[in-house]
Amino acid sequence: MKKLWMVYVLLIGIFLVYVLNYKLQADAADPWETAGLRGNIEDKYVMVTFQSGIDYWKSVLKGFEDAAEELNVSVEYHGSTQHDANEQMTVLEQMIAKKPAGIAISAVNSELLTATINKAVDSGIPVVLFDSGAPDSKAYSFLGTNNYNAGVEAARKMAQLTGGKGEVAIITTPEQHNHQERTDGFSVTIRSEFPEMKLVAIKDGRGDQVASREAAQQLVAEYPKLTGIFATESNGGIGVAEAVETKQGAGSLLKIISFDTDKGTLDLVKEGRIAATMAQGTWNMGYWSLTELFHLHRDLDEDPAAYANNKPIPVPDTVDTGIDVVTRANVDNYYAK
Amino acid sequence: MKKLWMVYVLLIGIFLVYVLNYKLQADAADPWETAGLRGNIEDKYVMVTFQSGIDYWKSVLKGFEDAAEELNVSVEYHGSTQHDANEQMTVLEQMIAKKPAGIAISAVNSELLTATINKAVDSGIPVVLFDSGAPDSKAYSFLGTNNYNAGVEAARKMAQLTGGKGEVAIITTPEQHNHQERTDGFSVTIRSEFPEMKLVAIKDGRGDQVASREAAQQLVAEYPKLTGIFATESNGGIGVAEAVETKQGAGSLLKIISFDTDKGTLDLVKEGRIAATMAQGTWNMGYWSLTELFHLHRDLDEDPAAYANNKPIPVPDTVDTGIDVVTRANVDNYYAK
Repeated sequence: MKKLWMVYVLLIGIFLVYVLNYKLQADAADPWETAGLRGNIEDKYVMVTFQSGIDYWKSVLKGFEDAAEELNVSVEYHGSTQHDANEQMTVLEQMIAKKPAGIAISAVNSELLTATINKAVDSGIPVVLFDSGAPDSKAYSFLGTNNYNAGVEAARKMAQLTGGKGEVAIITTPEQHNHQERTDGFSVTIRSEFPEMKLVAIKDGRGDQVASREAAQQLVAEYPKLTGIFATESNGGIGVAEAVETKQGAGSLLKIISFDTDKGTLDLVKEGRIAATMAQGTWNMGYWSLTELFHLHRDLDEDPAAYANNKPIPVPDTVDTGIDVVTRANVDNYYAK
Repeated sequence: MKKLWMVYVLLIGIFLVYVLNYKLQADAADPWETAGLRGNIEDKYVMVTFQSGIDYWKSVLKGFEDAAEELNVSVEYHGSTQHDANEQMTVLEQMIAKKPAGIAISAVNSELLTATINKAVDSGIPVVLFDSGAPDSKAYSFLGTNNYNAGVEAARKMAQLTGGKGEVAIITTPEQHNHQERTDGFSVTIRSEFPEMKLVAIKDGRGDQVASREAAQQLVAEYPKLTGIFATESNGGIGVAEAVETKQGAGSLLKIISFDTDKGTLDLVKEGRIAATMAQGTWNMGYWSLTELFHLHRDLDEDPAAYANNKPIPVPDTVDTGIDVVTRANVDNYYAK
């Protein structure tokens, strides 16, 4: 009797071990199924900006973090506190020393940052640029807004708001390249697509709320028939809204189109004082920057000389993260969550 | 004695069960770790082309399949056998009826395909376009070559090959928009960046080997000092190589730059008869098309009305998959595997 009992115990034990082991291997058993894309939680990916405290980066970082969570890797956020190339270079040097799994950086100055970006790439760290690029650097990819197209979209929205008729003007920051591109896209589109519209003035708002307000006040005085103003950045847009309010009272027929989705601008869209604002694909910039770095890291981890030996690079050259037109109808989707 | 032995067996059994169970749960235990990106093997993603048998699509399909394998989803490949919009429309209609998880399509004719593409999107199927777009359709994204930039790169390579001096010509297919863009990028760059070079002629090679050979023979006769020819597509490039060989013998000083990486072209690069060819990021087109569709499918699966309600779209507007310059030094990386 006792011997038989012992055999039972043994058999039950073996059976339990067998069941658990089967359970352990079940997922791997189907030859068609794979484990999915999953990284190592110890791999740290770094996002580097300038003026690191401003609202604009929040949605980029959210995208960066969302992708990291899905891929089971870690992120860190750093940046220069000021609009300062030397400070950003120092931050980038500190990151390089830590040998992260990848760096996504928005270059405060494309020329001054190029050498440090190349140093990171040469030391085997994958680097992509987002929002503000460095076209002559060795970074593997750029992800950002096509600013000319953003100007084109703004012009078409303006035509829709004004019935495709009347005088319009631009308030911009002429010395900044991306703002010049937005201005060009807007001007060319008004000229070529809307023969009954006329661009009567382009004024310098210096990226500043007060200067833009004054520029808008002048415009309204000089062109009493003005039906629309396109502000190529958000401080300017708020200034223009103030000027138009002061001059004509709320419910003005003068339509304002602004740029970006900081809270101040969105509030004015919600109140109807800014008719539309051009939202950049900031979440996409962050999400796809992390995704590209993940792929580059995996490739370089297997073979650090892969790209030096002319292997094709497994990420796109340039990603246009797109533009959304935000109006009262969809503004609630754009407040930071 | 026997009782003691039984206790040992029991303890060892319990210990084994404990160890296996621990192993089973170890991965899930860390609250910071996530499962990674992984789809359902039953989800089918479809790639649709035209002239579906040609070499050009192989590397795109490889990228599509590589991404699907990593993400644990399935793929199917379809297309019209001919360069025929009606045939491709029929194929696309058949795919829509099967309700796949996503469709990536290269439109043989952007205008004629737009209605059918919109039908797919309206029925809740995520659609992206690759290689050849349909800009006025509702597709969520376009992934392909920026052909103007490809022409710019070809011009710079030509300058490098010829020492930045001498007369150059283009053989192209003028009525095709993407070829016109390659021609423009090349022409503008020669004019603006290389004052000692001169573009002396642009000839129609009709996308055909024989016509391009004849065009090249005429060029060589008319411009005896010609130092370079840029063929904007691969049949033309092979024709040009034949013409130059016949006229001047191998080792000619006349440098040929061609386009794409079919076996015929790569063989001529390897032999040194074509100096360089511009490789499109075909693998990237496929890989990132599948990746974008995977994300769109996941989003629309959770909430089919997500984008109709103005939710920002979680994929980029446009992806420039980039251009690589292929020479003898790196040609071996570009043969289809």
